[in-house]
Amino acid sequence: MRAAVMRDRKLIVADVPIPEPGPGEVLVRTLACGICGSDLHALKYAEQFVETSRRAGGRPMDLSRDVVMGHEFCAEIVEHGPHTTRALGVGARVCSRPVLMRATGPQTIGYSNEHPGGYGEFMRLSEALLLPVPNGLATEQAALTEPMAVGVHAVHKARLTPDDAPLVIGCGPVGLAVIAALRLTDVRPIVAADFSPRRRELALALGADVVVDPAKTTPWESWRQAASVWPEPSRAPQAPPWLPGPALRPAVVFECVGVPGVLDAIMAAAARGSRIVVVGVCMEADAIHPMLGIVKELNLQFVLGYTQDEFAATLGHIAEGRIPTEPLITGRVGIDGVARAFDELASPERHAKVLVV
Amino acid sequence: MRAAVMRDRKLIVADVPIPEPGPGEVLVRTLACGICGSDLHALKYAEQFVETSRRAGGRPMDLSRDVVMGHEFCAEIVEHGPHTTRALGVGARVCSRPVLMRATGPQTIGYSNEHPGGYGEFMRLSEALLLPVPNGLATEQAALTEPMAVGVHAVHKARLTPDDAPLVIGCGPVGLAVIAALRLTDVRPIVAADFSPRRRELALALGADVVVDPAKTTPWESWRQAASVWPEPSRAPQAPPWLPGPALRPAVVFECVGVPGVLDAIMAAAARGSRIVVVGVCMEADAIHPMLGIVKELNLQFVLGYTQDEFAATLGHIAEGRIPTEPLITGRVGIDGVARAFDELASPERHAKVLVV
Repeated sequence: MRAAVMRDRKLIVADVPIPEPGPGEVLVRTLACGICGSDLHALKYAEQFVETSRRAGGRPMDLSRDVVMGHEFCAEIVEHGPHTTRALGVGARVCSRPVLMRATGPQTIGYSNEHPGGYGEFMRLSEALLLPVPNGLATEQAALTEPMAVGVHAVHKARLTPDDAPLVIGCGPVGLAVIAALRLTDVRPIVAADFSPRRRELALALGADVVVDPAKTTPWESWRQAASVWPEPSRAPQAPPWLPGPALRPAVVFECVGVPGVLDAIMAAAARGSRIVVVGVCMEADAIHPMLGIVKELNLQFVLGYTQDEFAATLGHIAEGRIPTEPLITGRVGIDGVARAFDELASPERHAKVLVV
Repeated sequence: MRAAVMRDRKLIVADVPIPEPGPGEVLVRTLACGICGSDLHALKYAEQFVETSRRAGGRPMDLSRDVVMGHEFCAEIVEHGPHTTRALGVGARVCSRPVLMRATGPQTIGYSNEHPGGYGEFMRLSEALLLPVPNGLATEQAALTEPMAVGVHAVHKARLTPDDAPLVIGCGPVGLAVIAALRLTDVRPIVAADFSPRRRELALALGADVVVDPAKTTPWESWRQAASVWPEPSRAPQAPPWLPGPALRPAVVFECVGVPGVLDAIMAAAARGSRIVVVGVCMEADAIHPMLGIVKELNLQFVLGYTQDEFAATLGHIAEGRIPTEPLITGRVGIDGVARAFDELASPERHAKVLVV
């Protein structure tokens, strides 16, 4: 099959074997697959990606062998492997978490030498994880389930209360997913910051109440203003009374940038007792000043992925229009356009999400 | 009055003015004052201490002027300032959080150019914060209220459930306080790690169930063993099912070292879904790999100090013998012995807590 392949740290178009569905697995044809910032990272910082994965106890991909990336997909069932229930027939459109459930444990799809992702024509998926795409939902919208589920999971892990006031730092695809997921809750106002005018526009389209250009105003100043005019909170923040300056309302900051230095800057600017949800993926070592965390009793919650329930709920939210996805798709390429799209995605003014179709 | 004074980044004995009690304040004579690791840090890394305090929005001490440190004290009331209730009379033994409540906001005692701490003969304290030392409790034990309250607060902030299995990294005074506070809960087993045999001995005396020498066994291996033989947990850890290797029981790691590199090492070794409570104070910049946190969805809770309620409860625990403090006091010096004691405290084999009496 044709695929955009990561080979020798480069993206090329090549012919690779069609994967064979094992027991409980189906073969699917990729209909649409989003290009994720993590894929750009994985290509650019391949060694760190592999090394950190190994240090964290994972089984990283072997960079000397081919990898077909792509984990944000909508696909169509082509063939059922052995020991399948065939509850969904050939031709059914499906979404799935990019995971293969094997007897030896779960294995990733798209960052693996064994299991090609959506930048190839075919994939194998676990039948037990398949979610049918509701009638009437466009394939391209369905392909956004995975990135939007990241936001739904991050907001779940934040365990927000109505008194919390969120601040989203960075409005790339991850930040936009967080904004859309925040909009599903009662927690307001949603303040979001990005240097890019285009991304601030998208943040408003996805549900942000206030957007900030950090070049002009500090995000915290805007947050403080917005949080103070929004309906009075019923509960005061919990913190030892001798720490400096009381917080207006508990701040929950979503770090959606993933670049070294951002976490420390957030810790330096944060009000005491703030919770910081780290959603942006920083592949490199990053310097922080623990004293900043200590003096303000900050909480850092790192998050990754989503559960099966969150994934299914996200597909439902998209199908019902509760999560707007139309504004996100800014480009479409074929398999031979993936490498160029990787380059173009570096410009925040041009693209939010590019789909491989 | 005589005091051990930090002047020109050195500790000297000098004569300094007796502080005058303002409205709502009392003058006290210091009876005993513990030497804290933070004081050693503040002397050694004075510039970082001041700079980080400023960056965190505090009002740091001016290093060009005298500072009398010492914030772990038991004292005796000598004189009441104006507008005091005199609920506790002259001669009453008292403990207090090292904070002065002023109209302009709370101010620290012991890291201040204005408010001398317990390394001097006299201090001024806020009457509203005074806690009487129960009859029959030795002054030296009462002076340990402050460092032990740090452990009580850290354990509160950890919001433990009976299924959690704690692991204490570092058994200096902070780690020992955490162990003592853990022992007040039902959460077991308490696993504690330190390179020093003397400190491991103290950890057992304070209530640890298992101690580990990290030079011989990894703390996590001991933790896994101990947590698996301890009564069966009723609840499984919450984490996306596709992350590597399920955790036996949710781990709550107390970082009580405060040296660069320790946090990252804990993040690298931690089981997925672990919570890390950062109690050790690292004054310097510290490199972490956020990817380690992300891949395992770690939570970092930085903590500082204690509330008034926690402080009062700790004094009660010590008075009732629920927190053992006898083993902790390993040395006593006069004001002229403070500088030497600072040097000796660098050796973990020799001392746990040295009191200035």
